[in-house]
Amino acid sequence: MPYPEEAEGFQIDSAETWTEFHKRHFKLKPFGEYDVDVKISACGVCGSDVHTITGGWGSQHFPLAVGHEILGTAIRVGSKVTLIKEGERVGVGAQSFSCGECKQCKNENETYCPNIMIDTYGSKWPEEYGGVVSQGGYSSHVRTNERWVFPIPEKLDTNIAAPMLCAGLTAYSPLVRNGAGPGKKVGIIGLGGIGHFGILFAKALGAEVWAISRSRSKEEDAKKLGADGFIATNEDDWEKPHRFSFDLIVNCANSSKGFDLAKYLSLMDVHAPFVSVGLPEEAGQEIKAQNLLSNGVLIGASHLGSRREMLEMLQLAADKGIKSWVEEIDIGEAGLKEAVTRLKKNDIKYRFTLTGYDKAFGA
Amino acid sequence: MPYPEEAEGFQIDSAETWTEFHKRHFKLKPFGEYDVDVKISACGVCGSDVHTITGGWGSQHFPLAVGHEILGTAIRVGSKVTLIKEGERVGVGAQSFSCGECKQCKNENETYCPNIMIDTYGSKWPEEYGGVVSQGGYSSHVRTNERWVFPIPEKLDTNIAAPMLCAGLTAYSPLVRNGAGPGKKVGIIGLGGIGHFGILFAKALGAEVWAISRSRSKEEDAKKLGADGFIATNEDDWEKPHRFSFDLIVNCANSSKGFDLAKYLSLMDVHAPFVSVGLPEEAGQEIKAQNLLSNGVLIGASHLGSRREMLEMLQLAADKGIKSWVEEIDIGEAGLKEAVTRLKKNDIKYRFTLTGYDKAFGA
Repeated sequence: MPYPEEAEGFQIDSAETWTEFHKRHFKLKPFGEYDVDVKISACGVCGSDVHTITGGWGSQHFPLAVGHEILGTAIRVGSKVTLIKEGERVGVGAQSFSCGECKQCKNENETYCPNIMIDTYGSKWPEEYGGVVSQGGYSSHVRTNERWVFPIPEKLDTNIAAPMLCAGLTAYSPLVRNGAGPGKKVGIIGLGGIGHFGILFAKALGAEVWAISRSRSKEEDAKKLGADGFIATNEDDWEKPHRFSFDLIVNCANSSKGFDLAKYLSLMDVHAPFVSVGLPEEAGQEIKAQNLLSNGVLIGASHLGSRREMLEMLQLAADKGIKSWVEEIDIGEAGLKEAVTRLKKNDIKYRFTLTGYDKAFGA
Repeated sequence: MPYPEEAEGFQIDSAETWTEFHKRHFKLKPFGEYDVDVKISACGVCGSDVHTITGGWGSQHFPLAVGHEILGTAIRVGSKVTLIKEGERVGVGAQSFSCGECKQCKNENETYCPNIMIDTYGSKWPEEYGGVVSQGGYSSHVRTNERWVFPIPEKLDTNIAAPMLCAGLTAYSPLVRNGAGPGKKVGIIGLGGIGHFGILFAKALGAEVWAISRSRSKEEDAKKLGADGFIATNEDDWEKPHRFSFDLIVNCANSSKGFDLAKYLSLMDVHAPFVSVGLPEEAGQEIKAQNLLSNGVLIGASHLGSRREMLEMLQLAADKGIKSWVEEIDIGEAGLKEAVTRLKKNDIKYRFTLTGYDKAFGA
């Protein structure tokens, strides 16, 4: 066993070979006094993983093991760690480090730190931290600063909790930052991994929730997830009954193809925020002030969420019995190929969780 | 004298002849029981007037008398008018009617009414209101619903107050709607008619105010207006010292030529709003969610302001002795030609107020 110097995981070597996973050992960053080592037992398969390995978001540090919806056990904690206990069941999400000193970091906006931003996979650590490229959760272990390691409430099953670490938080943070709650009409665009959490959490927060999708094919699912209403944007005049009525829309769409932004914006009440969390690979939309003038809508984007929001979200999920819709698949060359190929085609309702880590890497 | 069936004013006949004003009589809308007739004594010359008569904002209902920064006297009030007394000194701004019944109208968002939006000039009234095209303040009288007629505090001089009716309110509303006040760092982009009010009002509201301009040519003016700091965007790395530092920016720029939006957005603190009030004639900017992600900035636009905001702004200006920077010019074919020609070239610091109405139209 290479651990604790190395971990073992499934890496992709190039965007051209994005379905070919290679099981290899790779170096972990040097163990720091605030670090926690997590032995991984499950990992969600995030849309980001596919955008990354296919090159859709640009060039990457290959070879790379992706995966940032990690559940496991804290098997070693650094001498100064106070937030996590050895043996605890924990999660790790998409971010693994920030400076901790700047205004953003001190103000629960660590996902917007301008100084150091280490993603859980694919980021090169500064030389003083060892200089390695971070490797994600399609592997046996991750080594992460305690501030990005989260205790998992007992009531949440491992395979249900895993996808919450990125997709769940990505949906939850803009909801709570923009007042989703009783008396508010909230729209969730795009019923995929993030969007299905948008519906679950907006409902759990007490809002009136509308799913907004290209067709009615997912209407039944949306209702089961808790949606109060459903809008299909392939229908004529779909936007007209809802103009000026939404207090918040979280746009979780993974693609902007054929997206008529003006119609979506017309749904918003005066000055209501339209916040994107999906990061399509396509070119952007041309916007001029005139397009925003009829209702003074605010267009924004949201990046993950804070530590506090992560802990609150996990507790809310435990308290309300919120369950991710998960299809389990065993980690391995074949399972990973199937997972990323199907996710690329949106052929999943609504998240894969990788399991079988003991079989792949030993107990 | 044609009044009260008609008013007399200076009209433009086409975008091709936008500097040729023709003095003519034209029909007023039928007098309604909530209407107020205003005998005009002064009118500001707004950038909108030039965008309109030059065709920069598209085709118009010519012949047209523009002008929507109107000061005058209420010489006749309808039988149901309660907000305005006959003989009172009053102002009229850029809007003259909305439905009054919808959520927006009832929620002090009458500038976002989706049902009826009558601009002070250039809007065709529905047939039940007479069907005429509204004519603005380059004329002897306007007839306006009382909700868009505003008593002017005694301490405000007529020629100083006039430009506040559109430019002033346009700057004031996004400031107060987005928390400009003590402890907040506010940026005002574009030192023109609206922008100079942005500095005056942001300062009066207690914010730390930075003027953001293309060069340093207006720095001395900005400081006199009350700016605490000045940023010239033709200097290298101008944005770097200010990244993540602004709580609000009101973009008053009248043109988006050479505007590097990403640099401006990088100035914003996390989730801080970047609100445009200028409406450039050029094409928009391509935006994708990725551009908004480093700080979660919100991009918006703001349209005029509410009745309550207008009254508060005028009182604030009276209480604090705020003075528009005004160059007076007599209304008439020559004066109007000079005013719109110089405004088109930004050759004015920072607003023309048209005077001499008695000479042009009789006392």
